[in-house]
Amino acid sequence: MKRYERLAEDIAERIRSGVLAPGDRLPSVRQACQSHGVSPATVFQAYYLLEDRGLILARARSGYFVRESAQHLLQEPQVAYVAARTTSVDVSELVFSVLGSLKDPQTVPFGSAFPSPHLFPLARLARSMAQGLKKLSPHEVVADMTAGNPELRRQIALRYMAGGVRLALEELVICNGAMEALNLCLQCVTRPGDLVAIESPAFYASLQVLERLELKAVEIPVHPREGIDLQVLAESLERLPIKACWFMSSLQNPLGASMSEDSKRTLYSLLERHQVPLIEDDVYAELNFGGKPARPVKSFDSAGLVMHCGSFSKSLAPGYRVGWVAGGRFAEQISRLKLMTTLSPSVPAQAAIADYLQHGGYDRHLRRLRHALEAQQGAMLAAAARHFPTETRVTRPSGGYFLWFEFPERVDSLQLFQLALAQGISLAPGPIFSANRRFGNCARLNYGYPWDARSEQAMALLGRILQSF
Amino acid sequence: MKRYERLAEDIAERIRSGVLAPGDRLPSVRQACQSHGVSPATVFQAYYLLEDRGLILARARSGYFVRESAQHLLQEPQVAYVAARTTSVDVSELVFSVLGSLKDPQTVPFGSAFPSPHLFPLARLARSMAQGLKKLSPHEVVADMTAGNPELRRQIALRYMAGGVRLALEELVICNGAMEALNLCLQCVTRPGDLVAIESPAFYASLQVLERLELKAVEIPVHPREGIDLQVLAESLERLPIKACWFMSSLQNPLGASMSEDSKRTLYSLLERHQVPLIEDDVYAELNFGGKPARPVKSFDSAGLVMHCGSFSKSLAPGYRVGWVAGGRFAEQISRLKLMTTLSPSVPAQAAIADYLQHGGYDRHLRRLRHALEAQQGAMLAAAARHFPTETRVTRPSGGYFLWFEFPERVDSLQLFQLALAQGISLAPGPIFSANRRFGNCARLNYGYPWDARSEQAMALLGRILQSF
Repeated sequence: MKRYERLAEDIAERIRSGVLAPGDRLPSVRQACQSHGVSPATVFQAYYLLEDRGLILARARSGYFVRESAQHLLQEPQVAYVAARTTSVDVSELVFSVLGSLKDPQTVPFGSAFPSPHLFPLARLARSMAQGLKKLSPHEVVADMTAGNPELRRQIALRYMAGGVRLALEELVICNGAMEALNLCLQCVTRPGDLVAIESPAFYASLQVLERLELKAVEIPVHPREGIDLQVLAESLERLPIKACWFMSSLQNPLGASMSEDSKRTLYSLLERHQVPLIEDDVYAELNFGGKPARPVKSFDSAGLVMHCGSFSKSLAPGYRVGWVAGGRFAEQISRLKLMTTLSPSVPAQAAIADYLQHGGYDRHLRRLRHALEAQQGAMLAAAARHFPTETRVTRPSGGYFLWFEFPERVDSLQLFQLALAQGISLAPGPIFSANRRFGNCARLNYGYPWDARSEQAMALLGRILQSF
Repeated sequence: MKRYERLAEDIAERIRSGVLAPGDRLPSVRQACQSHGVSPATVFQAYYLLEDRGLILARARSGYFVRESAQHLLQEPQVAYVAARTTSVDVSELVFSVLGSLKDPQTVPFGSAFPSPHLFPLARLARSMAQGLKKLSPHEVVADMTAGNPELRRQIALRYMAGGVRLALEELVICNGAMEALNLCLQCVTRPGDLVAIESPAFYASLQVLERLELKAVEIPVHPREGIDLQVLAESLERLPIKACWFMSSLQNPLGASMSEDSKRTLYSLLERHQVPLIEDDVYAELNFGGKPARPVKSFDSAGLVMHCGSFSKSLAPGYRVGWVAGGRFAEQISRLKLMTTLSPSVPAQAAIADYLQHGGYDRHLRRLRHALEAQQGAMLAAAARHFPTETRVTRPSGGYFLWFEFPERVDSLQLFQLALAQGISLAPGPIFSANRRFGNCARLNYGYPWDARSEQAMALLGRILQSF
């Protein structure tokens, strides 16, 4: 990171944490030079960058100010959601109708599960594909199917090491996206009828997978800022024969909650005491606005209990379908399950990503991507403050590309979904994030697409529909 | 196909069917010109081609002769294998030890499940990948995940049409290789504990999948030439609550048996009467030495009962992991299952194959591939005749790249596997093809690699081990 980028990041962090509030004036260039020990050019570059990211704005002859972003205009949801008891799961139909709504490229994709593909270095990846295929010997085209691309495995292991997670290379199983990894992990440690602890609200695909594997869910409430309610989890582990936990400990989908390191350590001890394996879904790790990924629960894993799942689909290469799991003591079994179900992820896709990680400038791309997402978050929050009912609450995640809105009780988000779709706007209604169709007045909105006049109009239109309830 | 290729194919067909026997003299060039109405140049080209393919050889001053290939020196197995009754399945450990044996590139790969990667147009595919990625818009990189690459779907549908199979485009689900397709089909029509009819011997992966999904197997005997024993199948369907059949009706793995069109029609009527769905695994369709693929059971499917699974892994692009299923009435459900388990096969891999099918010359490549495989089959049969015990029986498949050897009763093929492996030769021992470890004196050998001195030595060495029993 260059000096001005570091300075910009410092200031951004202070804005995020509230040290610098909306409307606050930033230090003058001269003051900033003195207090940071940098040149005026560096300060200017940092301020330009922050302006680009939508965090500050210049006022003629008065200097730079923290933007009146929406963050402090709509309230944040404050309490963890109360969860229901054990339930069998049946949410697929609803999910498929939401997914179906996204097919039309004309639809405003607030309901999408991916950021805009325009944010990814697709042309550079295509070059890496050419390079990767050139390097690949015919023998490897077949051999890489069972073991995975060795350079890719090494690059992934290096990133774990840089993040302070010690990992044996043998733990890594390359999969068809994190989706396959999560499926295999769950199959590895459960049998039909078993009980699995999941979050509430939870990523809808996890509900679908539980449904498919005939597993039962124990929903553990998630606090929008602090993450999983450890008290409830501890009680559930005492009381119920839970066979596995499936959690997102950082940038949880849909709430964006990230557990603190202390909470993660506590969570791990709990699980170790009960010898319950954790499937840690960490696919948004690289989209942490603060810079490098938060430390995962996996970093505390001394007993091989944690299966840590990652992916390139949200941070680099959507559609390539390359993810992985660091499978702990289950790695061998996961690898065998994979051989029996899909054999292998695409070998060329693996080779392309391996080459890109070596030569493509992944960290530089990630920095740009995170800045874009953070600016877009600000824009959506501001638009929501302008257009949505004032009682609306909204999360303030420190990364990713989802906001979770809690509308007034009178709003029916399934109806909202239908009405919005009729106007060409998709969104993800709350009930698809729950095994028992809770969150009827909530919705997840995707801000992963560059903000433009159409986005603004869509928010205004959603606002009008919301007012009509 | 050019004129001389057609002529060569005519003669090859006569050799295969036994009209021209080993040692027979081919018509002189002049005779051939007259009887086929072609020029001498055409005849010469055809004869050169057949010589290249190892089917005929020139003797100085006497003309061309059908090679003394092994085909008629070792006997063919004559009877369908008697099958056991319903069994639960537990063969995985054995299979993994065979797969593990293939990792060392120094091993002679008679145990491999793939043909030599050198037989595939990998460089041309890499060009198609570059083209495909160039044509792909960012929007499609995400959109193709749910629906599959539209051009690829169209190309596959066109090939069905050319083969006389009528298909609605909506029936096609693109998958991570045929392996995923088969898995999804099976999950779609069964629940744990259900009974599935499979072949005996059967492709070992089908046994692993049954094991994983906790399904029970009814083994239907397969005749090495005629395929599934329809009598036994009919009785089993009467007597047992069979929920699905999983068969390879053409070029069955491991026997290479292909059912006649009449048998396929009878099979379909049987299944339709009982309303039992068929998972038709047809991954070797394009490797039919006779030219175009044999008509599948799917071509008789008027009720949407047949899920026809195909793949590019064995005929074009190993490691790309692109297969499909034409899912009949189950297509929608299969597609949903896929969304929940892996979401999508790699989008770039799909784009590459779509471009190749349009511009790469697939049929030309297939012709070369089939010729190479046929020549290699001749070489392995000849070597087996030279080195293996004379009581050995061996199949004579009309395509693919596997021979099935039935050794004298005293041979223990698991021991053979271990002894051979110690000498750097892999093979697939009979018991991995059976739910109850039958075929203890059989083995499947892969002739998909170009034949060379090392192959010949390996066969001699196998022969010595066999004699030692």
